[in-house]
This record gives sequence, structure tokens and C-alpha cells, in this order.
Amino acid sequence: MHIVVTNCNTTQEMTEEIVRGARAAAGPGTTVTGLTPAWGPESAEGWLDSYLSATAVLDTLRTYEGPCDAVVMAGFGEHGREGARELVNVPVVDITEAAAHLACLLGRRYGVVTTLERSRGQIEDSLYAAGVAQNCAAVVGTGLGVLDLGDVQRTQEAFVTAAERAREAGAEVLVLGCAGMTGLQRAVGEKLDLPVVDGVAAAVKLAESLVSLGLRTSRVGSYARPLPKRRVWGAGRG
Amino acid sequence: MHIVVTNCNTTQEMTEEIVRGARAAAGPGTTVTGLTPAWGPESAEGWLDSYLSATAVLDTLRTYEGPCDAVVMAGFGEHGREGARELVNVPVVDITEAAAHLACLLGRRYGVVTTLERSRGQIEDSLYAAGVAQNCAAVVGTGLGVLDLGDVQRTQEAFVTAAERAREAGAEVLVLGCAGMTGLQRAVGEKLDLPVVDGVAAAVKLAESLVSLGLRTSRVGSYARPLPKRRVWGAGRG
Amino acid sequence: MHIVVTNCNTTQEMTEEIVRGARAAAGPGTTVTGLTPAWGPESAEGWLDSYLSATAVLDTLRTYEGPCDAVVMAGFGEHGREGARELVNVPVVDITEAAAHLACLLGRRYGVVTTLERSRGQIEDSLYAAGVAQNCAAVVGTGLGVLDLGDVQRTQEAFVTAAERAREAGAEVLVLGCAGMTGLQRAVGEKLDLPVVDGVAAAVKLAESLVSLGLRTSRVGSYARPLPKRRVWGAGRG
Amino acid sequence: MHIVVTNCNTTQEMTEEIVRGARAAAGPGTTVTGLTPAWGPESAEGWLDSYLSATAVLDTLRTYEGPCDAVVMAGFGEHGREGARELVNVPVVDITEAAAHLACLLGRRYGVVTTLERSRGQIEDSLYAAGVAQNCAAVVGTGLGVLDLGDVQRTQEAFVTAAERAREAGAEVLVLGCAGMTGLQRAVGEKLDLPVVDGVAAAVKLAESLVSLGLRTSRVGSYARPLPKRRVWGAGRG
Amino acid sequence: MHIVVTNCNTTQEMTEEIVRGARAAAGPGTTVTGLTPAWGPESAEGWLDSYLSATAVLDTLRTYEGPCDAVVMAGFGEHGREGARELVNVPVVDITEAAAHLACLLGRRYGVVTTLERSRGQIEDSLYAAGVAQNCAAVVGTGLGVLDLGDVQRTQEAFVTAAERAREAGAEVLVLGCAGMTGLQRAVGEKLDLPVVDGVAAAVKLAESLVSLGLRTSRVGSYARPLPKRRVWGAGRG
Amino acid sequence: MHIVVTNCNTTQEMTEEIVRGARAAAGPGTTVTGLTPAWGPESAEGWLDSYLSATAVLDTLRTYEGPCDAVVMAGFGEHGREGARELVNVPVVDITEAAAHLACLLGRRYGVVTTLERSRGQIEDSLYAAGVAQNCAAVVGTGLGVLDLGDVQRTQEAFVTAAERAREAGAEVLVLGCAGMTGLQRAVGEKLDLPVVDGVAAAVKLAESLVSLGLRTSRVGSYARPLPKRRVWGAGRG
Repeated sequence: MHIVVTNCNTTQEMTEEIVRGARAAAGPGTTVTGLTPAWGPESAEGWLDSYLSATAVLDTLRTYEGPCDAVVMAGFGEHGREGARELVNVPVVDITEAAAHLACLLGRRYGVVTTLERSRGQIEDSLYAAGVAQNCAAVVGTGLGVLDLGDVQRTQEAFVTAAERAREAGAEVLVLGCAGMTGLQRAVGEKLDLPVVDGVAAAVKLAESLVSLGLRTSRVGSYARPLPKRRVWGAGRG
Repeated sequence: MHIVVTNCNTTQEMTEEIVRGARAAAGPGTTVTGLTPAWGPESAEGWLDSYLSATAVLDTLRTYEGPCDAVVMAGFGEHGREGARELVNVPVVDITEAAAHLACLLGRRYGVVTTLERSRGQIEDSLYAAGVAQNCAAVVGTGLGVLDLGDVQRTQEAFVTAAERAREAGAEVLVLGCAGMTGLQRAVGEKLDLPVVDGVAAAVKLAESLVSLGLRTSRVGSYARPLPKRRVWGAGRG
Repeated sequence: MHIVVTNCNTTQEMTEEIVRGARAAAGPGTTVTGLTPAWGPESAEGWLDSYLSATAVLDTLRTYEGPCDAVVMAGFGEHGREGARELVNVPVVDITEAAAHLACLLGRRYGVVTTLERSRGQIEDSLYAAGVAQNCAAVVGTGLGVLDLGDVQRTQEAFVTAAERAREAGAEVLVLGCAGMTGLQRAVGEKLDLPVVDGVAAAVKLAESLVSLGLRTSRVGSYARPLPKRRVWGAGRG
Repeated sequence: MHIVVTNCNTTQEMTEEIVRGARAAAGPGTTVTGLTPAWGPESAEGWLDSYLSATAVLDTLRTYEGPCDAVVMAGFGEHGREGARELVNVPVVDITEAAAHLACLLGRRYGVVTTLERSRGQIEDSLYAAGVAQNCAAVVGTGLGVLDLGDVQRTQEAFVTAAERAREAGAEVLVLGCAGMTGLQRAVGEKLDLPVVDGVAAAVKLAESLVSLGLRTSRVGSYARPLPKRRVWGAGRG
Repeated sequence: MHIVVTNCNTTQEMTEEIVRGARAAAGPGTTVTGLTPAWGPESAEGWLDSYLSATAVLDTLRTYEGPCDAVVMAGFGEHGREGARELVNVPVVDITEAAAHLACLLGRRYGVVTTLERSRGQIEDSLYAAGVAQNCAAVVGTGLGVLDLGDVQRTQEAFVTAAERAREAGAEVLVLGCAGMTGLQRAVGEKLDLPVVDGVAAAVKLAESLVSLGLRTSRVGSYARPLPKRRVWGAGRG
Repeated sequence: MHIVVTNCNTTQEMTEEIVRGARAAAGPGTTVTGLTPAWGPESAEGWLDSYLSATAVLDTLRTYEGPCDAVVMAGFGEHGREGARELVNVPVVDITEAAAHLACLLGRRYGVVTTLERSRGQIEDSLYAAGVAQNCAAVVGTGLGVLDLGDVQRTQEAFVTAAERAREAGAEVLVLGCAGMTGLQRAVGEKLDLPVVDGVAAAVKLAESLVSLGLRTSRVGSYARPLPKRRVWGAGRG
């Protein structure tokens, strides 16, 4: 089975890290291909970045011609999910919803620990649209930007501090609220004695599940195929 | 990996059917063991049956001593899930929530087609507690009892009729609302041109996912281990 | 009028205390009979206990042959209510919902003070299913186990501390969140200058109300009579 | 115990009918006094009438000097309830909320059958503010005005037609949505084979319950006593 | 265009202040007329005052015979809005809803800073009925009475303290929760570096918008014209 | 005052029509400039189109250098609003939210009549995120594509048919659910005897209101300025 994982930004190193996380989660028969958009933001932090990212990811998917049994969209809280469902003929799983779906199975309320506080709104809206917001106790920011997550020590500490706020708000399970946090779940989970769900890993498992059960996106109603029409994908300006 | 699938009633044939469905969904390295409660109702249809079933299933699980990496609870809309999460040290997935989680990934709204109308309340409450009720457009009954599902032709027709009501209410994906419907998804899906999710299959995939990611039920808050105390499991009356 | 009050656990002393509370609340023409399940947990603290308790209480009710005009179920936050509604031909009132119904009449938001924090989820779900969760500002635990409530001084102090948290969350009325707290309402109410509702007393008054108005559980839809079928009530194991 | 029942309009005959219903529901030791506002609308049908009625009722209550252990406000869906809670030192129960509280104990969803469709909004808002809207399946109008209810035959027929619409929407219990319908519950309940709750009777029982348990409105927060200040109660214009 | 602004209390100075705020907000072609009810409370603080105010305002409007293209109701959180919509043939805008509508356009969550804590319930209910409660993060009291707002220094300080609580609760925009705060928005907005919306100004702009677009209250359903009947507007007692 | 109105697609004729509607609504001192994205879809119908449109509109806004006191985004149900709020230093009003805000002032429930059924999900999500979904009774499709709206007769008929469905669902006010419907409101409103709100006109009035009150988007939290970073706006592929 071929799973295509799309980074939501143009930073190649992040794609590689995401692919590493995806491969670690994938089953024996699964091949993972990572895609980095040729355009868009170097990191997605806020609504403007998120819309730019969504379109760049859709452009990447529509021009991708390799093998693909399922798509994993690896931008936590970023837009585009529903557009990808219209576009491709295979299941699409977004890491935001994926982490929440698994978290719901592990405790009565879950919390999301993300990068900047400003991302909270997007994440809340994304969980709501995916139908899994109800048991989310809190979305808490660490104050770290996406491209600051390289400093593992600092990231762990900030994560643990934020996680305690989520726990006070009722969270019994935690979700890593950024694709760039992939890999943190084990170290942090032990320190906190709480299950920690990584969205990339979760999305890979859900994508494999859908493919192996032969399930595909419904074409009735919301996610019908895009209508044929004239579309221009960017003016090519810097 | 060993997955234990518990039937919610005492009807051995139904356990066998459920196990067949679970094995068809399971990955290559997964062994499925079916358990039939030694007591409880012969089918679960209503709240009284559901509570009786829940306790019988918990009794079955606490006295089971075989290998077990995850538990799948195969009673659609039946109680007991949270008690099992307290009891066992491995992930627990209920077919009600499992079907809903996957259905959310395939369309914007899903519908449940179940047996008797009287089960609607339990199913709605179960989806709500699991945190996935929001995108449920409708729970519709076929009017068939659990033990009537053997008549495949009649079941398919009743399912399709009920499915149309769900679709009018906005459902873009369907969920089989009874463990005894397992196997129906392909035939009915083709007729309706809609994805149809079987809870048993969905739960097996989610259980495999949690196990392979090393995720376990949170012990913080709701699902802490049962406190040590005196408990008597039934008076043994008929 | 005969009201049957069912304890949710096997501790006889607690049944007696509950019956004392029920009798204090009952009107002149009302007789109160207390029932202690022959099996189940010695106290209900958590989901596993709650399901076990529910089935034991249903077994107790179905084998009770004395006079009965209404049933009061005296397990705060415990399951079983809907099953009892199917089973018996008289009104059934649960102390969780009863306390909430009266509390809604006394202030704009109410709070529940219960035993262990782990019970919060069950209580919230029970209030939700009963249709009275909306005006609940908070469910707060005292940290005391059910069988620790005998120490009146310690219980009162823990209650007052927890009550202050509920008040900060907006509660204008308090609910005693455990049948074993019956009797505490007057002492604590004076200290806090807030109305405090005891579920046992509330349920007795609501049961008397329904009986005197000739109102019975609806048989249309959710609470139809249990279908005739083979059911086994426990394996008789310890 | 003395219960004061306030009609919401100036029609003396309606007060008498309401008082008859209240007396039929009251316990042996309860005396019922009916009050008719000296001003206000002759029937309350719509928001303007409802506000006018609320103030006239509050004026009636503040100038009433007879015995009073509890107040029952007998305007279905009409305003004023919270103001009365501030004003008097005894429990206040509104027939809208009272009927809903009892209905919740009798089925999983209830429906309200009222007079004109235009009252639906007020009733929905009143149930919501009272914290009992969640399990309301539908509020349905009969198309009859308040002062048309004298024609019993026509009222019963219109009620049954509307009740069927409520039932299709999921109602398992019905509520009489107008004080002027008091007395209809038995005849209609038999025809429909559903429990039918009359708000006047329900409110009397709830008022008796609160009084006998020594419970009073909370003075913390929302329902503190009105502040001393200059108030003028109407200009006396026709 | 003539806009009639109704004060909700009998304090003439407050009407004048409100009219000053309204005129400052009004466009070049708009004339503002302020009305002070001839009866009612001298300030509205609590539910009893609010209902009294609502009826006095409705009486004022029904007996007003001057020019009127739209009505602005200037009581924050006070009742009456829907009655006025039934009564007059021009658009009606309430300052509570108006401030919330504009606040929603300026940030993802807004907070209301009002006078006494006891008003919170009314404001929450008013926002809910208007359909704009969802993005309200908090309603916070300053502890100042309506007639204490004359002390500008003290009011500003209390406002800023309360505003910080709203901001911690997630508010990104603030709403002045009392007509008597009109004029505070600029000073406080600068100190807090947050947009601050004054309901009087907001309502004037929304009223102008509706009038210039030729939009009027719907007569279908909720806000149909009051039915012709006998109504008495107060007994004329002090 | 200069208001910039952005079409959400590349069809110049539609921009012109929108600008005509905007100018008709604008006050005497307001100048309206219409912008057509240089890239994107020729019409926005579905999620893929909507994300593409959002990014194209943001690109258009960031490279626009003319005068601008407020931005009106004229894509009904289309994405991008929050990104524009981050990007520009002037108020941003989207026609979806604008129509809903005004509709809430005119009736208790409103309905949206849009083009294709597939747009319903986006519109519902957009109303929800804007905080004005609560009073929306229904979003109903006419079955007409965006570029089919030129046939006025057919459009009117389809609109009236769909409007009746919205009305049955409780709508008392209607909203034109597509920028291309601008101009229809008067003809259809008369036929239906219901107020009909056009989003373009509504947004212009709300934008004027915000500007004249000196209100700007909050920079605290969600809508902080985009962070400086490398962004590429499209690959320039067709």
C-alpha cells in the first residue's frame, strides 16, 4: 500500500521528519512517499499561512502522478482537508482529526498542545468540522514557533508546562498539536504518565485502516468531484 | 497481536459471525478470539438488556485468562465500554464508536441503520459519550429484531429502505448499526453507492492501530483502575 | 402510597441511612421500603462498579414482589435508570436527575459535590441523558470515598471546600452528589448560605408527585417493555 | 401550606379554571389562592403580551398581602419567572418549566402542544432558560387562540392532530402548552396512549415538594433581592 | 432618517447621555430622538427591573407619535426587544445584540464588561436569544451599579480590571455592557489595545443599515403584529 | 470612505455585478472598488474551489496598493476571511456573515438559499465560525450553478421553490446565498412577503459602520499580523 504524506509547508527538513514518523508508524506492507509543496509558506502559523498552505498542498496533490492508495495531510490545524477529499479518489486523513479520533478512544477528554497560541482558533475549528471537538478539553499553546521545535530540550519543557494546563482543564490524553512535534510522544508520555497521540502516526494507521477495508470518500453531497471548469493555480509571484 | 472480541449476548452463532467479520478485517499478524458471555440476554434490544449485557461482558473479561492485546466490544449501542477500560490493561474499542470514527473520515455527515427503533436512544447516547455524535445525521431503525437478521434478502431490503431515510436527513456515509449485520456492507454499499462502515471491522482496525502505536487507556481521571473492594457478580438465578 | 427505594450497593447500613432520608422527606401517606441488592459492589465508585450495580439493582427490582407505586433509585450518577423504566409499571425516579430537577428551580446554575473525582464523568453523562445538564456549572469531587462518609466532621469540611469551587464556577445551588451524603444538606446549607438539594429527598417528592398525578412512564419508543426472551442474571461467581 | 397561583392575564374565568386544576392536583394540606392581575392583556399571545403580562403579574405579587408559602406562575411560555424569584421569599415555580421537568421523568423526549404557532419561540426560550430544553423534541401549535379553548371538542381534535406531529418528531410524552388546557390531559392521554403532563398540576406538586423540603430560591448571584430604588408601576393608561 | 432611541429607565440624565452617544455615531442625514419612559425603574439592575422596564418601554413606544424610521432600545441585557418588533412597523435594534454583532466581526471571541455580576444571566440569555452568544467568551461584572457610572475615573479602573478577566477567558474584543458606559470606549480601548464596542453606537449604525437597505422585521411567525384585544397598561400605582 | 470589494472568482462580469450591488447599497460618501483575482477558479463551487479562491483573494489583497478603508469579501460561503483579517489593517467583512448578522435582526430564524446543494457544508461551517449559525433554520440549494444565475426568470423560480423549503424549516427571513444573486432580493422578497437579505449590500453597510465608528480588527490572539517569513504565492501553472 502506498501512502502519500503531504507536508503543509515548503521546509524540506520538516517533510523528512514527518516521513520518518510516518514510516515508523506504517505497517509492514506500506510504502510512504513524502511530498513538499513547491510553493506556499515555509511554516504555517496563522490563517493566512493556512489558506496559502491549503492551496499549495492541493496543487501538489493534483499534479502528483505517482502511486497513491491514501493521502495523509500533515499540517496540524491547517486547512485543505475537504478539498483533497473532493480531488483524489482515495481516502484522505488529516493529522488533526486523526489524533483526535484515537485520543477519544483512550480517555474521556483530550487536550491538544500546540505551538503558538494564535493557532488555537484554527485547531478548534478543524476539530469541530471533523466532528470530534466535543471531548476536547483544551487547546494550549507552548509559545514556540514551528521552526523553533528543533531544540528538543526546550520543546519538551514547554510541552510539559502546557500539558499541565490541559490536564487541569480535564484532559486525560494529550495530542501533539504540530507535525513538527512527531517523535516527542514517547519521551513526553513517560514524563507525564499520560498517553500522547501523534497525529502523523495516527493518520497513517487510519489511512491504512480505510484502505484495507476498501472504504472510500463518499461522493454523495459534500465531497463530490470538483466540477470541470477553468482554474488558475497561482500567478507565480514571489 | 491477539484481539479479543466480546459478543454482547449469549447467542453462540452470533459470536461466530462476528469473529468471521473480525478475522476478515484483521491484518496478517492478528489473531482473533471470540468470547460469548456465559450469562446475560440472548440478544440485546433495549436498556434492560443492555445493562445486563454490559455486566455479563465485564464478568467475561475479568475471568478471561488467555492472551489479549486489545479488546473489541461487539454490541452496537450497548453499554459497558468505560467499565472495560477501567478493567483491562489493554486498549478497548467499542464497535459503535469505531464505526462512527471511520465514518467521519468518509463524509461530512453519517447515518446509522439499526434494528429496532427502540435502540435509537442508546445509540445516540453512546455516540455522544464517545464524542462522535456531532456529525451523525440520523439513527434509523429497520424494524427487524437482532435475531431476525438471518434472512439476508429481507434484511438487505429493510436496510436500503432505512438508508434512504438517513440519506434524506443528510447522511453521506452509512454505519451498520448491529454486530449481526456484519457482512452486509459490501452488498448494500454497491446498491446505494455510498460507503458503508461495519463496526466490527472498524473496531478491529482501530484496536490494531492503538496496539501497534503502543497507546493505552489513560489512567488519569475517568478510567482509573477499579478500586479493590468486595464485589459479587450475580446471584446465579435464571 | 408505597415507594421502593433501591440502594445501588450491597452495604446494608447505607440502605438504612437512605431509607431514613427517604422517610424524612416522604409525605404522611407514603410508606418507604428499602431494598439492598443481593449482589453487586459494596460501594459504587467508577464505571465498572456502576454497570455491576445497575444490573444487580435491576435483578433486585424484577424479583421484588411487594407493594410498589414508584421506584426511587438511590445511586448518584449510577447507571440503570432507563432499564428500570422498561421493567416496572410504575414511575421510576433516579436521585441524580431528581436533585438536578429541583436545583434548576432554585437558581440559574447548580453545582454537584460528589465523592471521588473519578465519578465526574458518570455524573455528567447521567445529567445529560436526563436532559438537565445544561444549567450544571460544575461537578466537583471531595476526594472522599463512599464508605468514608461516616466521618461527619471531615465530610462537612471536604464538602464546603468543594462547594466553594462549584460556586466560583457559577453554582448558585448545590446538589449532594452521593446517596451517602443524605442528611448533610441542612448543616452545610446553613454554613454556605446556599440551598442544598439532597437527591434522595428530591426523588421521593418527585415520585410522590408523579403517582398522585397518575402519570406513568411512556411505553412509546425508548421505554417499551422488555421483549420476552431468554436472559440469565449472573453466573453466581464471587 | 398556601400556594398562590397567578394567572398571566386578566380573564377571571381562566383564573377560576386554573385554580380548579391546581386544587385537583394539590395535596390534602394545601390551600390554593388564585390571583388575577388587575391589569395586563386579556390573554397572552406573543411577546408584547408576554412582557405586559410579566409586569402585571409582578405587580400583583408585590401587592399581595395574604398567606403564601409558594408561588405558581400559570402562564405557559410567558415571562416573569426570574423576576418573581427575586421578589418573593418563597419558592416560585412556572408551569412551563414544571411540565418539562416531570415530562423528562416519563420518556426520553417530550413534545409541547400549544395554542398559536407564534408562541413557539417564547416557549423554546423559556424551556432553554429553565435548563430543560434539551429533551424537547418539538413545540407544535394547534392554531387555536387562548380564548378559543372553551370549545372542548374542537380543542381535543386540534390537540390530537398537533400531538401526532410532535410524536413524529420523537416525542414520547406530551405537555399541555397552555394553562387554559388544564383538564384536557386525561381525555387526550387515553386517546393517544401517551402520558400527558399539565403544567398547572406539575407546578403545584413541585411547589409542594420544595416547601416540604424547606428549599428556597438561592440569593447568591442571579436571584438576589431587588435593590431598593424608585420604581413606578404603570401610568394607568388604558 | 429618524431614529428613536429608548432609554430603559426613568433617569432623564441617562437618556441625554445615550442620545449624545447615538448622535456621535449617527450618519449625516440621521436625526436622533431620545425617549424616557414615563414609568418603570430609575435604573434596571436585575430581572424584576428588566421586566418592568420592558413594559414601560413598550408603553412608551406605543404612545409615541413622532417620526420614526427605526427604534434603538438602549438597555443592555434588558428585555422587550421581541415585543417591540411585533409592535412597530420599522426595524428594531437592541444595544445588546448590536454590540455583539459588530464584535463578532472584529475578533474570534468577544467579552462583555457590565455593571453588577447579577446582570450576567440576563445578558447571556439576551445574547443567546439574539443568536450571537456562541462567540462570547465571558460576561464579567465591574461591581458598579448603573447610577455609579458617573465617576469616570473609578469606572475606567473597574472596567480595565474586569476586562482583563474577560481577556484571560479568551476575549479578543470587548463590549461595553451598559448604556451608561457610552463614551468610555475610546479611553479604555487605548489603554487595553483592544477594540471596544459601544452598543448604542453599534445599534445606531445597524438601524441605519437596515433602513437604508429597505429591510423590515419579518411578519411571518414570531414577530407577527400583536392581536387586537383588551390590554391595560398599568394600574398607575407608585 | 473607500471600500474594496473582492470577487472570489476570476469572472469579470460577476465582479461588475457585485460592484453594482455594492454601490447601490453604499452611502453617499463611499467609493467602491471591485477587485477580480488574477488567478483562481472561474466560479467557486465546492471546497477545492473555495480554498483556491481564498488564496487567490489573499494574493489579490496583499498586492493591492490603492486606497482602502475596509474590505468586503464577496464569496458566499467561501474561505479566506480570517486570513484577510490578519493581512490588512482595515476592517474585513465577509458577505456570508454579514447577511446572517442582519438577518438575525429581522426574525427569530433565518434561512439561506444558495446555488448547489454541495455548498451547504461550507456555508454551515462559515456561519458557525462567524458565530451566527445558531438561528439559521436551514441552508437550501436551488440546484443552479453559479454561472447559471444569468437566467433571471429561472433563477427566481428556483429561488422561490427553495425558499419555501427554508420557510417550512422555520425560516422567517431569507438570505441570498451567492454573490451572483445580488439584485434578486427585491423581486423575490415581494413575491414571498419575507425580508430577503443580500450579503453584498449587508457587508457594505457593516463595513461602513465599522469604519465610521473607528473600529478595527483585534490584534490580540487569533488575528495577529502574519509573521514575517518566506512565502511563495503559486507556481504559475495553469
